[in-house]
This record gives sequence, structure tokens and C-alpha cells, in this order.
Amino acid sequence: MKSDTTMGGRVTIPTDVDVVPETLELIRRWGADAVRDCDGTDYPAGLRDLDAKVYSTYYTTRKDNEWALANPDEVQQCYIMTGFRTSPGGELRVELMQGIAQELLRVNSQDDITRWWEVVDRTSGLPLPASDWSYEEETETVIIRNTRAFHEYTVSFLAYIIWDPVHMYNAVVNEWKDVDHQITFDVRQPKTRAYSMKRLRNFIENNPHVDVIRYTTFFHQFTLIFDDLRREKYVDWYGYSASVSPYILEKFEQEAGYPFRPEFIIDQGYYNNQYRVPSREFLDFVDFQRREVAELAKEMVDITREYGKEAMMFLGDHWIGTEPFMDEFQKIGLDAVVGSVGNGSTLRLISDIKGVKYTEGRFLPYFFPDTFYDGGDPVSEAKNNWVTARRAILRNPVDRIGYGGYLKLACQFPDFVDYVENVCNEFRLLYRNIDGAQPYCAKKVAILNCWGHMRAWGCHMVHHALYQKPNYSYAGVIESLSGAPFDVVFLSFDDIRKNERILDDVDVIINCGDADTAHTGGVEWEDPLVTSRIKRFVYEGGGFIGIGEPGGHQYQGRFLQVSAILGVEKETGFTLGYDKYNWDQDKAHFIMADSSDLSSFGEGKKGMYALPEATVLVQEDRDVQLAVNSYGQGRGVYVSGLPYSFENTRLLHRSILWSSGGEDDLLAWFSSNYNVEVHAFPEKGKYCVVNNTYEPQKTRVYRGDGTSFELNLDANAILWYEID
Amino acid sequence: MKSDTTMGGRVTIPTDVDVVPETLELIRRWGADAVRDCDGTDYPAGLRDLDAKVYSTYYTTRKDNEWALANPDEVQQCYIMTGFRTSPGGELRVELMQGIAQELLRVNSQDDITRWWEVVDRTSGLPLPASDWSYEEETETVIIRNTRAFHEYTVSFLAYIIWDPVHMYNAVVNEWKDVDHQITFDVRQPKTRAYSMKRLRNFIENNPHVDVIRYTTFFHQFTLIFDDLRREKYVDWYGYSASVSPYILEKFEQEAGYPFRPEFIIDQGYYNNQYRVPSREFLDFVDFQRREVAELAKEMVDITREYGKEAMMFLGDHWIGTEPFMDEFQKIGLDAVVGSVGNGSTLRLISDIKGVKYTEGRFLPYFFPDTFYDGGDPVSEAKNNWVTARRAILRNPVDRIGYGGYLKLACQFPDFVDYVENVCNEFRLLYRNIDGAQPYCAKKVAILNCWGHMRAWGCHMVHHALYQKPNYSYAGVIESLSGAPFDVVFLSFDDIRKNERILDDVDVIINCGDADTAHTGGVEWEDPLVTSRIKRFVYEGGGFIGIGEPGGHQYQGRFLQVSAILGVEKETGFTLGYDKYNWDQDKAHFIMADSSDLSSFGEGKKGMYALPEATVLVQEDRDVQLAVNSYGQGRGVYVSGLPYSFENTRLLHRSILWSSGGEDDLLAWFSSNYNVEVHAFPEKGKYCVVNNTYEPQKTRVYRGDGTSFELNLDANAILWYEID
Ligand SMILES: [Mg+2]
Ligand SMILES: [Mg+2]
Ligand SMILES: [Mg+2]
Repeated sequence: MKSDTTMGGRVTIPTDVDVVPETLELIRRWGADAVRDCDGTDYPAGLRDLDAKVYSTYYTTRKDNEWALANPDEVQQCYIMTGFRTSPGGELRVELMQGIAQELLRVNSQDDITRWWEVVDRTSGLPLPASDWSYEEETETVIIRNTRAFHEYTVSFLAYIIWDPVHMYNAVVNEWKDVDHQITFDVRQPKTRAYSMKRLRNFIENNPHVDVIRYTTFFHQFTLIFDDLRREKYVDWYGYSASVSPYILEKFEQEAGYPFRPEFIIDQGYYNNQYRVPSREFLDFVDFQRREVAELAKEMVDITREYGKEAMMFLGDHWIGTEPFMDEFQKIGLDAVVGSVGNGSTLRLISDIKGVKYTEGRFLPYFFPDTFYDGGDPVSEAKNNWVTARRAILRNPVDRIGYGGYLKLACQFPDFVDYVENVCNEFRLLYRNIDGAQPYCAKKVAILNCWGHMRAWGCHMVHHALYQKPNYSYAGVIESLSGAPFDVVFLSFDDIRKNERILDDVDVIINCGDADTAHTGGVEWEDPLVTSRIKRFVYEGGGFIGIGEPGGHQYQGRFLQVSAILGVEKETGFTLGYDKYNWDQDKAHFIMADSSDLSSFGEGKKGMYALPEATVLVQEDRDVQLAVNSYGQGRGVYVSGLPYSFENTRLLHRSILWSSGGEDDLLAWFSSNYNVEVHAFPEKGKYCVVNNTYEPQKTRVYRGDGTSFELNLDANAILWYEID
Repeated sequence: MKSDTTMGGRVTIPTDVDVVPETLELIRRWGADAVRDCDGTDYPAGLRDLDAKVYSTYYTTRKDNEWALANPDEVQQCYIMTGFRTSPGGELRVELMQGIAQELLRVNSQDDITRWWEVVDRTSGLPLPASDWSYEEETETVIIRNTRAFHEYTVSFLAYIIWDPVHMYNAVVNEWKDVDHQITFDVRQPKTRAYSMKRLRNFIENNPHVDVIRYTTFFHQFTLIFDDLRREKYVDWYGYSASVSPYILEKFEQEAGYPFRPEFIIDQGYYNNQYRVPSREFLDFVDFQRREVAELAKEMVDITREYGKEAMMFLGDHWIGTEPFMDEFQKIGLDAVVGSVGNGSTLRLISDIKGVKYTEGRFLPYFFPDTFYDGGDPVSEAKNNWVTARRAILRNPVDRIGYGGYLKLACQFPDFVDYVENVCNEFRLLYRNIDGAQPYCAKKVAILNCWGHMRAWGCHMVHHALYQKPNYSYAGVIESLSGAPFDVVFLSFDDIRKNERILDDVDVIINCGDADTAHTGGVEWEDPLVTSRIKRFVYEGGGFIGIGEPGGHQYQGRFLQVSAILGVEKETGFTLGYDKYNWDQDKAHFIMADSSDLSSFGEGKKGMYALPEATVLVQEDRDVQLAVNSYGQGRGVYVSGLPYSFENTRLLHRSILWSSGGEDDLLAWFSSNYNVEVHAFPEKGKYCVVNNTYEPQKTRVYRGDGTSFELNLDANAILWYEID
């Protein structure tokens, strides 16, 4: 019962001066209605009058070295902590730039270093008075006098970012020769702010063919540092340490009402990365930055509108301060957000953004020579990307899809052009079928961590969606949920503390990650208000799924603070004296019904054991991997780790239903074969069945009323049906 | 160059009424010069005039139910914490004896429960005022009024030990029927104390044939609790929770000078087990108990002497308060200590005791039907036990060896009788050759943990020497050292804090265990005095070997507080943003020269990575297992775990030498084949070469002057040589 798929629109393609006919051809075949430039491409004069929207990348903070060089005091800055230096006693010399790319950063000793720098005795944990150290300009060395022997010291200092890190990255990776280093200037500071508004107006006035100003975000690069061998040294896609300057920090101090310390940003060298249980001071700083960035970004958006153009934000690179799920973001007044789609989680990171007219996903692969080379296979990369993201699109679609890179390269691969033509048609069809409707959600699930909606969908991403060994067993949970039939919300411990009713409409809480990280909560579990509200929620019938070391924080006789709920505890040695008799496995449990012996718990966890009252479903060599428990009217499920797979997605699905007492809800909009998923849109009277694999699949499809039918699906197929 | 081995002595055998001729036969064949009774045996009248010492087991705290029943207020007591109970709000009823064997314990509500019990809100961490709860005698239930909803509560209470736990264990395991439960009375209390001295005198007077009173230690059982199914529920060989009573605790309170809290003993339900970083209050209590027990034990020893008898202590069961490596122990004035030998560590636990005339090791197997059954193989068990312990005996011999059980059973296995005859001869020969001399020690090694010499050799034993999955990778280090050519000392962080010079003659510090346990130190690493002394030690040329999570305690930007020394750090997520490039393995390193691909790091550790300056020797799937580093003039070695094996013993040996700059000392009193070891006694002009395996071995033996020779050894062989 396939629908017609031939209408156009909702697709953006790149262009360049040398591909005018190809651009026109792909506009027709892919149904593209927007074209864009890319870093290193130019917009062809011959397409200025095209019947399509024209996007133009706009860099607010670079590509104007004339300005940057004339205003070195308003170059962007970041906080850096040196490595630890052990003192054998006496004077200790600390070279600030050791191990850091000199072409990236330059020490800022212009501002008052006694105020903005900090020397910390990391052995005692105390900062030193400024009178105990001095700075030797010629050697970029801090000299600490009268150190305590065999204490370790660090220096926190400010540095100018004299080469935009993304530009440096592109230059290094692509081995650009003789490239002029683009200096990054700080639009937040007075001279540059005034200048930047004029510069923006000039750009718009000089590019009348442009319909959409695509801001490569706004003002501050996420943290990205290179070492003296030009290798990446430190990266944090969420990092706020490169959004600082004395100008900004003084404003922050005034607003916060307490004295600023570099340590608020430095955070012992951890730079407040997302594993850290966030300090109040860091959250205050993020709040401050968000408000300030939003206000200033709005000025640019207003200018854009004044000229009748649309303002689009690229969610990446200089996006710090524009946290898209926070209220301030919507005040910017953007027309659109575009972001790169690596998987389902990154798709939802874009499509779940509220307060913009439309969202756009940039799909892979980029039309770059690393994929589009002679003998390359861009089709399989595109397939993998599309099928992975499609699950999430079916839960909440972006409004547009698009591609980037050199169009010429793509045109050399006719199979690829054909495949993307199918993708574009498939996307338009599903978008039209869904038509803004809410998909059927079996349950409402709340991911509970320290970040809440600020890190919605991105709560287990370290460097965007890159694989990390300590991470994939948890990121898999978010990826599974991105395309699963659940209403997913992201709650912080603060949300629970501040709003007694916030769990009222939640069916299941998920707490997922390692102990004493922001993902599981750490010291938050010492707050009786928080823990009693969570326990009440479960006791009165809610579900709780703990993955990894849920509630992991040593306190008052427990390592897992939710062990009463989950019926598991971690052996850290403290309970070795207690005999453990509960090891028998119940392999016939509802949760396990679709699980094979091939299921993987990823990194898993060592030392997990079941309390006597719990039911063990899987233990490996006496480490419990999966267990269930009752707690009052509610239920707990413990899982040691859930890397992303279709099988694990099903395990999670069943865990959500079981923990909330919803076993009977299973056979509604459900596929017996976990490689196939069913998404229903009752208000539109439509549902679809999707084969997420690259092979044909056979399954039994259950409709919402429990009736069912057998179905064979081609590889990757998506089939649409009317609800009778 | 074997010596004559026919002389007798230094051997103890069990006897019984039905084995008089066999006893005489084995006295001759094994050269036994002492006979002993056992639990469940009687001393034969026919052997009363034997020309051998007679040992008699003496139980100070049980086997006198008449007294116990007449003095129920002086029955021994222990502290128990109930499990955690979640309150849904309102009144909460906590049944004290839930899950505990009723035949073992009886609630003590005679003493002032408002003073000696404690109800703790484990959610807030605060104890409740006694006015908030009451006790319902009939149901043995504490009723907590006006609880806070969804807080968890525990009750700490005192209970009488109405069945001696060892007696109960024996009764349950051996399925004794209709056995009278031996009640354990408290010799520390006034009436029983006076009575016990008289009882002891009576016993000695009534058993004139006895030469040696073998005390089954003195007064307090280590912690051993059974559940309502008579299964072991909780055990701690080092546990002090069964050495309490209001009488004792009031004395403690007076001495300590601060108010007593049950929580000092309960410790959140962890009962101060040896993984816990000990609290000041617990250490105070142990000190107090040790002094009090020693004083009272001395009274009994003095009486024993008064009658011209010897006093021997069995290191086990009721040994709490007689910590044998603490100063007070020597004040007891014992003649001897006997203990069970499970391996090298337990041997040294006995043989390293100072201040007694002799020590005796009780070897395995016991002459019990579980080994000595038709078709059983007691010889291989004996071989395994002897060869494992022999390494340690060669470092520091016990003065005597012995066996226990039913002699009749042993006599039914002629091979076994033959084998033990060889063992006895071998033991006497080595004892005579060593003759009290110090063995050659290549280096002095200090095991650093929170316990120091109080837990010398026993610092990774949970229930004596039982295998524990979270434990064996660390216990292996101690076992390796028990028979290795090093002078081994056990230091606490307090030792380092109190004595600036204590590391002066140490070559290598070893810190071994999991993070935030007493084995590695936890919060001790926040004390600059401690950390700077340790760092100075290494910086000035010392060695530091860290195993597992050495110095593991999150503080000031480090997880491993010794990461500057070791060049490794643990990834807990906090440093995921830092790129790691140091993964190449140096397999040719000195430390690895005898290692094969079969070497095992046991449980290992996940997330360990090398700092740029370190040298990785082994990493598995990007988890560093073995790495080395320089630190000033000193060196660090990181190992993820070292289960006991001959190969790992060699790895540790080489690590000790390398870390202290002693590579050139390797080829002295050394065997090229790690299955064979060389022990030298320069002051006696002797050395021996020992094959630790059950197969023949070929090796090259290096003398102290570096000269060497090839040697073939029979299985298990020990060969003695003169130093030229
Ligand atoms: Mg949408
Ligand atoms: Mg004896
Ligand atoms: Mg030395």
C-alpha cells in the first residue's frame, strides 16, 4: 500500500562554481529546494536566480584577520591548566605552554594575572597567594617561590586563541599549505560587537542572492586544544572553557554575586566535562553565558530579519551558549537549526529542538574525497547513516534533510545519486504521512542525570557521537530510545528537587552510567528530598531501570543508592563478608523472551551481586548482568550495560514495559522480529513497518488492537499502512 | 649433597584412645615429640607416661553450660545491624532477628536499649533520638514512630551469642544430632572472670599428664553469623563486633574519653571489615580490646606457668584482641603459637610472630573423612600444602610442624605416612641448616596500607585464605612475597605520618588493592604529610609498585594519587576529553624478560591508561596492565593485578629490583627457571635450591658471587649446598 513519492522539496544540496548543470540536475532528481555553500566552495553566479533557497555559511568570529590583528585585546580567550608539576622543594618553574600548540594559543599576560590566573597546590588543594609566584614573560614561565617539597602544583591561566581551532583542524587534516591562520575574535567584547553588527549588515547587503544566513553558530568555540605536535590534545563538544575573558568574567562575577575563581572553569583540569557532577558555580556560569549569548545572537538574528532573510544556526563548532533545549535558546528567534546526523541520538538532538520554524539534518557521507574516491562505496555509508537515523526520524522528524561537500564528487557515483533520490522520496513520504502527528508511545520514560534537558539526547556523547570504550555501553541506551515507541524526557536531580509533581506522568526512570559521574548523580543521592521522591515514585508503581552503576555513590552502607529498588549491589570489598546465595538465573522472564545467547552487555560491570529478594536473569562468572526486583507496587530492572543493537533495543523495550507493569501492552504496534519496528500515528490513521537491517526480514506485525499479520520485508524497507 | 635427615623432633601428631600402638609407631617414624588431642577425641590413658610433650586443647569460653545458664547476663554478646528497611511513612516495624539463626543469637534487651541500641535513618545518615522508637519484646520488633516517608532505616542492637559459632558450625557441617549447644560466656566480665581462673586451675590440676595448655585462643570469637537456614550469613576473621558488651563498652568509653556510639562497631553494616579505611574510633576500640585481652590472657598464662605447664595459643577462632604483631601480644607471655597453614602467607602469619619461644604450623590435610576416604588422595593434598608453604618456611621457619584429626584414618594410607615421614625429615633438615639465620634478602620491601603490621601477611585475607574473586589478584602479591628473597615489612599511613625516617632503609613501597579501600588508603592520600614523604622517597631513588588501583581516591584532579610516580591514571570518564597516544608496548623490558604470553593479571582493571612520559609494557584492548615510569631518581611500576603463580612471582621479583635500580643484583642467589628458587643463608654458609613444582625442572643456579651452574631437579626437590 505504498504511496506516491514523487513530489519535491525538503532537501538541501551543496553547490560550487564548477557544477552548475549538475546542481540543476540534482535539484530535479532529488527534489532539492535549497542550495548551500560549504567551507572552501563559492556560490556560482549562474545560480543566483535559481528557484530555490540559497543558504550561505556565515562566520561571526573569524575570516577577518584585519580586524583581529588590529584588536588583539579582543581576540577570544580560553582557560588552560598546565599539567601537574612536582616540586622537589624551593623554587619551581612551570612552563605554561609545554605540550600545547604555539600556533593555537598565546598566553594572555596583558590582563591582571594576579586576578585571572591561579597557582594551585594540588597536594593541599589550596590556591597560592599571588605574592608567592611571578611570571617570566620571555620564557612564558610561572615561577613559584618557596614551594613545599613534594607537593604538586598547577597553573591556571588565560590564553588568546590565535588560530580558530576548527580552521586549524581543517588545515592540519587536509594538509593545507601556507594557509593564513584565521584568528578568532570575541563578538562579546565592545569594539568587536559594534564592528560585527556592521560586518553582518555588509555581508547581507553584498550578497542579495542569499536567502538564509547559516550561522556557524555564534560566538564561542567548544573546547578544542592541539598539542605541540599539532595533534588533538583535549576536546569537549560541551566545553565552556573557551568562552572566557576578563571582560566576560567580570560581568559574570557581578551577576553571580560571589568572587570568581579560575577554578570554577578549570575544575582540577577536568574543565567541567559532562561526566563531572556539575558545581553550582559552573551551572551559574553556563546560565550566564546562555543568557548573554542569546541576547547578542538575537541582535544578529534581528538584523537578518530586517533584511528579509532567514537566520539558521549550525548546531556545532561555536555553539557554546546556545544550549538548544534551554529556554533562552528560543529567545534568539532563529528560523532554523541545522546539524550533522551521525545516528538516531544526534537526529533527535536536532529534531527535538523547539521554537524554530524548521530543523534540518545534514546526512552522511560528506561529498569529500575520503569517501568519494575511485573504488569507494559511498552508497553503503549512506545506507547505514539513513537506516540508523530513520528510526529516530520516525519518532520526530527533522523538517528537512541535506548534504554537504563537493557536488562534483557525488555526481561521479550514479548509484549514490540513485540511492539518495530514493532517500529523499522516502523522507518526503514519511514526513507527509506523519504530518506533525505524535507517534504512539507505549510509555513515558525519564532519563535521570545531573544535566536533565540541557543534555537531552547528548547525555552520553563525548566528542559528538564518537565511540568511546567507557561510553558505548551507556550511549546505546540513548540510541535505542531515539527510535523507540516511548515518550522520552530528560530530568535532572534539580528538576526532582524543585518540582514534587514532575514524576507524576512518568512511567519509568532510567539512571545509566558509572558511579560518581553526572550520568548517575554522585553526591545527589545524599539528598533525602531527591531519594525519597524517587523511591516513592517506584514504590507507588513506577519503574526504575538502572544501567551500569545506577545511583553509584558510597554513602551510608550502600554503594548503589538504589539497591533497595533494583535488588543489586556492587561488591567493592566492603561486603565480601556477607555470603551471597542468589545466583540462579531465570532465563524465562518476560524481559528475556527475545534475547539470545549472543546478547552483549558491552563493557559490563564487575562485582555486581543480587540481594536475596531479587531475581537474577543473567550472571556471568558470578557478576550479575541482568536482574529484576519488586519494590512496593513498582519494579526495578538492573542491566550492566546496553550497547546499541536491535536485540538490546528489544531488551530495553521489554524492560520498560515490565518495570512499569505494562507487559500486557507489548502486542500493540509491535513486531515479533526485533529487526523490524512499527511506528503508529493514530491521529493520522497511519502506521509503518520498518526493516532496520540490510537483509530481508520476516515478522508478525501487531496492530494497536492486538490483531496481527505475517509480513515479509525487503532489506531496509519501510511500508506504510492505513489504520482501519 | 644431601645431609643426614634421621634425627627426630619438631613434630606434633594427634592421638586418640583407639590408636595407642599407631601413635607409638608414628612417633618413631615421623620423629614426633609431641602428641595432642582434638575436638571430639580423648587422650588415651595408655600414653600418659609417654616420653613426648602432651598438648591439650582448652576452651576458655565454652564447654561449661552449667555456668553459662546460671549466669545469662555474662553470656557473650555481639552487635548486629538489621537490613535496610524502607518506610512508606508513618510507623515502621523492624523485626530484629529477621534472617538470623534464632539458635545462635538472642536479643539483649536487658541492658539499657536507649543507650546501647541505635536506630539510624540511613537516608539522612542521622541516628534517631530514643524517644522516636520503642521495642516490642514479644515479637522482637523495634517500632519506629513518625518515620519520614521513603527513608531507609536500620536498627543496631546487642544480642547474646547463645551458641558458640564454631561449635554451631561444626554441628551443622557434621550434622551432629541432639548436640547440646555450647553457650559462650564472657571471661571479661567480673563473675565469669573469677570463675574462669578457678576453672582453669581445676583443669590443670585434674590433667597432670598435660604439658601444654593449648588455648583456643582466649575470649572473643571473630564475627560469624548464621542465617535462619543455618547457612553462613556473615563472616569476618578479623571482626571485632562479637567482642562487645555494655560492661566492656563502658570501660572503653571511659578510656577513650568520648561518648560511645554503636555505629563505631556497626560501621553502616560493614562492621569495620579490613577493606574499610579504619575510623579513629574503631582503631581506638581495637587498641583498647588488645590491651584488655592481653592483660586477662596474661593472668591465665601466669596460672599455667605456676603449674609448670606451657601456654600455647591457637591463632584462630576466639583470637580477637590478640593481634599477634602488636606490642601488647608479647606481654601475654605465651610460650608458643600454633596456627593452620593454608599457604605461604598463613605460614608467615605464624612464623613471623615475635616474643614466643616457638611457633608451630598445623599442616593440611586434616585426618578427616572428607580427605581420608576409600579412593581419596591425601598425598597430593599434603604435597600441595607442603610445597606451597615450604617457600615461606625457607624465609622464616616455624619451629615445629604438626597435624590434626583422627590418626587412625591416616594410618590406613601407607603412602601418606611415607610422604609425611619425608616431610618431617625435610623440615628438620632445613630447620637445622637455617638455624635461626637471616636469609639473603635482595631488597627491603614495604607493603603500605591502612593496617600496617597489625595485618602483616593477612592484609588480603577475607575469610582466612579463601579464594575471593575481588581479592585473589592482590592476595597473590602477598603470597609471592611470603617465599621471595626480600625483607618484607608492613607499614601503615600512620607509620609514615608519625616517623619521618621510617622509609630510610626501605627499597620499594608496594601499594596494592582497589581504590578507596584500606588496602590502598583512600582518604589518607589527601594528607600532604603522607603523600610528600612517599613522593620524596621515590624521587630520591626509591621504588614504588602499584597494583590494581594504587593510591586510588578521587582528589584534586587525580584518581590515582600516585599517578605522577607510576605514569598511569584511571579513566573514570573525567579525562575522556584528553587524547591518549601512549599505547606502544615495550615487550623487551627487564621486568618482562621471563614473562610469557600466558601471564595473567587476574581480574585486571579497566580504564587504565599511560601518561605520555610512561612506558607501557602490556596493554590489552587499550587497558594498561603493566607500565613503568621514572620519577626523579626513583622508579614506578604499575601492574593491574598479580594472582599467585611462579611466573607472576618472577614478574614481581623483577619489578622490585628494577624499581629500586637493582637490575644488577638479579643474578645473585637466583634461578634462571622461575619454577625453581634459591634461598641463601650466608651467615651459616649454606644455600638451597628448591623445585616448587611437581615435575622435574632444569635451571641455571646463580651463586651470590655471580658464578653459576646448570642443575636438574626432581619434582619437589630441595637441594642443600655449602657456600664455598
Ligand atoms: Mg519536528
Ligand atoms: Mg595441639
Ligand atoms: Mg633505598
